[in-house]
Amino acid sequence: MFENSIILLDWIGIVVFTITGALVASRNQMDVIGFILLGTVTGIGGGTIRDLILDAHPVLWLDRPQYLVVCVAVSIGVFFTAHLVTSRYRLILWLDALGLALFATAGAEKAASLGEAPIVAITMGVITACFGGIIRDVLGKEDSIIFSHEIYVTAAVVSAASYISFSALGLSRELAVGLALAAGFGLRAGALAFGWSLPRYKPRAPDT
Amino acid sequence: MFENSIILLDWIGIVVFTITGALVASRNQMDVIGFILLGTVTGIGGGTIRDLILDAHPVLWLDRPQYLVVCVAVSIGVFFTAHLVTSRYRLILWLDALGLALFATAGAEKAASLGEAPIVAITMGVITACFGGIIRDVLGKEDSIIFSHEIYVTAAVVSAASYISFSALGLSRELAVGLALAAGFGLRAGALAFGWSLPRYKPRAPDT
Amino acid sequence: MFENSIILLDWIGIVVFTITGALVASRNQMDVIGFILLGTVTGIGGGTIRDLILDAHPVLWLDRPQYLVVCVAVSIGVFFTAHLVTSRYRLILWLDALGLALFATAGAEKAASLGEAPIVAITMGVITACFGGIIRDVLGKEDSIIFSHEIYVTAAVVSAASYISFSALGLSRELAVGLALAAGFGLRAGALAFGWSLPRYKPRAPDT
Repeated sequence: MFENSIILLDWIGIVVFTITGALVASRNQMDVIGFILLGTVTGIGGGTIRDLILDAHPVLWLDRPQYLVVCVAVSIGVFFTAHLVTSRYRLILWLDALGLALFATAGAEKAASLGEAPIVAITMGVITACFGGIIRDVLGKEDSIIFSHEIYVTAAVVSAASYISFSALGLSRELAVGLALAAGFGLRAGALAFGWSLPRYKPRAPDT
Repeated sequence: MFENSIILLDWIGIVVFTITGALVASRNQMDVIGFILLGTVTGIGGGTIRDLILDAHPVLWLDRPQYLVVCVAVSIGVFFTAHLVTSRYRLILWLDALGLALFATAGAEKAASLGEAPIVAITMGVITACFGGIIRDVLGKEDSIIFSHEIYVTAAVVSAASYISFSALGLSRELAVGLALAAGFGLRAGALAFGWSLPRYKPRAPDT
Repeated sequence: MFENSIILLDWIGIVVFTITGALVASRNQMDVIGFILLGTVTGIGGGTIRDLILDAHPVLWLDRPQYLVVCVAVSIGVFFTAHLVTSRYRLILWLDALGLALFATAGAEKAASLGEAPIVAITMGVITACFGGIIRDVLGKEDSIIFSHEIYVTAAVVSAASYISFSALGLSRELAVGLALAAGFGLRAGALAFGWSLPRYKPRAPDT
């Protein structure tokens, strides 16, 4: 089942993003079907958009229907265990950080393996990493995490660009993947732990 | 034009969903072009996403441009007649219930006819049934119907899973379609009439 | 690089829509990565959806990665210059008007060149023109411009329908494009300058 590292990254990323979607469902006090819907959309949404744009058919969950089984099972599991978590919001943020690095790396690797240009591969990594969470937040009426004050999209860019750079430098795929994951997750973890952020736009003229 | 039952389901589903989209436009006091936009997006949005993910090109309204003509005509008709309805919101709910069962069945049937696995076919039914309404509610700033307290997405799952199950049991396509429609619409109708709902997630620890 | 007029329209449309997305980022006081994300999504979102539905792979920015380079560069440029603008909101509206006419014409032309029916080509023009802005406004939490009281979607319909009509009448492609641009931009400009609008739906019965 785990033929290569892209698929392994996809598996872990899908599980952690599904958990974040189901936790958002718990914050909205949905029923179990709502958990499954929001968990599954978050888990496979980014990868689906990636595969559609890359014309990489069948898209991931048509190619491997077991992804859907896992999304459903994980969502149901969260429905019965979410009350055990002290702070569901913090857990969402940390799992999302892990999924972000995983999907950014996996998305860039998939696009590069299909021969896309480096800037396209980096963009596909960012899309894969960010769009599941964007859909989750729009549907769950959360303030969108991608526009949080702390570094977020930047960490996806760093993971994707690291993978592309390290591959171009001739590193083995496993090493490039490992370093890319560490760079993106480390940056986002620092942002969560220490509030790291980039300078924000400040209007200097009266804002109209 | 009505070569087979999938296409007939698509036609009726498109008409009723277009009406719900145009009625949401009326609640936002839009102009006639706004009616056409919101009606058409709601009518063909779910089927378009289904066909994109299934890689079933040309997508429905490129294959049959007459779908667009019908969406435009129905939306214009609603623009001039919506004031005749006593409660537009109740009418939206009931037409949406009918469209939900129709599109869930049609989506599952189309995916199954393309050889997809049962869980994929059921998921495609749910996507076809729910995404037109999701887009309508996001654009029209309505509270999303898919997260209403009464049973909603569950009815789409029931229609889609019924079709797949009855087909697997060897029932004729017409019978399987009829039973699937009745099961999903009946469940959603009961939810609307009697307030049926599933147990919702209740935090047992302090919610954070 | 500018092999033909469709591509030229795409280029200018992408630049002006990217600026509007980046200006919305400035109104939300994002960091530079937020500018790039919102600028790029707005600049290439409509064309990406167009190409996915038309099954015209590779989609525009996979075919021409330099589009991405331009989106990134323009977004960064806006990050450092947006404070020079007196009224960023008015600038957004006027650039959006220009992009609207450009993308409506380009979308209709591309669909027609692929042999789609006239009503499909007009619809593709409207999708190309409107969906970048729709995504921008949903992500940036702006009131969606497509439902503004002044004429908006109608101008996209006029540009797209004009191009299809003038082509059918045998005008040269350049002339048809020029007239279509002038018609759509002129209509939207009039709406912005003079508040032109279509009659809106007014409930005559008590609204429920």
